[in-house]
Amino acid sequence: MRWKCTVAYDGTGFHGWQSQPSGNTIQDILEKRLKTLFSQPIRIHGSGRTDSGVHAKGQVYHFDGQWENPYTDLLNALRSGLPESIQVTAVRPVSDDFHARFSARGKRYVYRLYEGYAPPMETRYYWSLGRRKLDINLMNETATRFLGKHDFSAFGAEGGDSSPQSPIKDLRRLQLTRKGRHIRITTEASGYLYKMVRSLVGALVDVGVGRLPPGELHRILISRQRTALVVTAPARGLCLEKVFY
Amino acid sequence: MRWKCTVAYDGTGFHGWQSQPSGNTIQDILEKRLKTLFSQPIRIHGSGRTDSGVHAKGQVYHFDGQWENPYTDLLNALRSGLPESIQVTAVRPVSDDFHARFSARGKRYVYRLYEGYAPPMETRYYWSLGRRKLDINLMNETATRFLGKHDFSAFGAEGGDSSPQSPIKDLRRLQLTRKGRHIRITTEASGYLYKMVRSLVGALVDVGVGRLPPGELHRILISRQRTALVVTAPARGLCLEKVFY
Repeated sequence: MRWKCTVAYDGTGFHGWQSQPSGNTIQDILEKRLKTLFSQPIRIHGSGRTDSGVHAKGQVYHFDGQWENPYTDLLNALRSGLPESIQVTAVRPVSDDFHARFSARGKRYVYRLYEGYAPPMETRYYWSLGRRKLDINLMNETATRFLGKHDFSAFGAEGGDSSPQSPIKDLRRLQLTRKGRHIRITTEASGYLYKMVRSLVGALVDVGVGRLPPGELHRILISRQRTALVVTAPARGLCLEKVFY
Repeated sequence: MRWKCTVAYDGTGFHGWQSQPSGNTIQDILEKRLKTLFSQPIRIHGSGRTDSGVHAKGQVYHFDGQWENPYTDLLNALRSGLPESIQVTAVRPVSDDFHARFSARGKRYVYRLYEGYAPPMETRYYWSLGRRKLDINLMNETATRFLGKHDFSAFGAEGGDSSPQSPIKDLRRLQLTRKGRHIRITTEASGYLYKMVRSLVGALVDVGVGRLPPGELHRILISRQRTALVVTAPARGLCLEKVFY
């Protein structure tokens, strides 16, 4: 039997999603819990990695295992045995051809910015911009140029999943909204290169503070070459909100 | 020169406000920073204690010290040298007869409840009620009986500030509001006994789940005797929002 699970986590204290010898990753902790529940090693497959410090409200993974009881019991069993910074929010049986990574049709990320210094109760989830002021309208105008299918090599980075993938992604949404000092950048795409969201955010912030002209940013996109002009935004502001299937 | 400071903190990792030999308290950390800035030991005086795990958006303290530069520089100096879970949000000079504790005319606390299991990005600031469902209307009705001047001994606890104080407090506000699964209990009073807010919250939740009849709770108030029927709500849901002067 194959199970599709949705998990939320505060990534602050972990070394990212992907299993590591240190053991302090989301995957390691979930697999450890499954091993206890099923009395045998269980391998889980995530929709993709998240880096150290990146959060998730709707990360998805699957695993195979026999579970005789009602599956609401499986949800409760998973919940009760995890640290409170990791929370399985949904479990349901799926067909054997479902794959958390390869069946995904897209993902939504939200990046959170704070104009000023984020309060202590929010600082883990926001990039605090200090005294920098953002021109949100200019950033939104600039963002529309990225929509659609592009080769995003200029916003990718070395590392990440080892398997080769096309640098051409379909960016369906890249949108900024403001509520007082809180700014959200919502992005939806068919897929992302490694560190692509944080690179787009870093570049857009530089546009918003007047450090990078929008035309220059567009030239960088077209060049398909990563340059030092593109700064990667901090991990803490990033949250994987939803995986689409 | 006397300075009035406002400070916000995430109390999760600290042993409360009050200075302790361990040094891991908000007061200790603020005093250590001031010692560096003023090159001498500086004693600070808070509006009152907060327990281990309790948060603050607007705790107030004062201290005496000579500062020759503009006081916006003092704010920046305080901010830059503190852990990000403690943030001084305002500093201003006050007259010598101002006292953070004795000049306070009242305080507002907010207690945060979550019906269900709070998501990982909120769990540090909410009391998760799991499957318990709350009758908010009944709780609000019950809360109105507590308004006004009462002897709140039945909702106090041993410990806290060593100085004797009257158990009679003027409760000006005790109000529940709901937004989906998020429930806030806002309270304003002239002052509070030790653990009074968490005791009122614990009792109100027991009313809301049907475990404690409202009439019984009122009898407990009148008895002025703490009983085992009154459970203290967890520290994590509590936040000192504002001190009134």
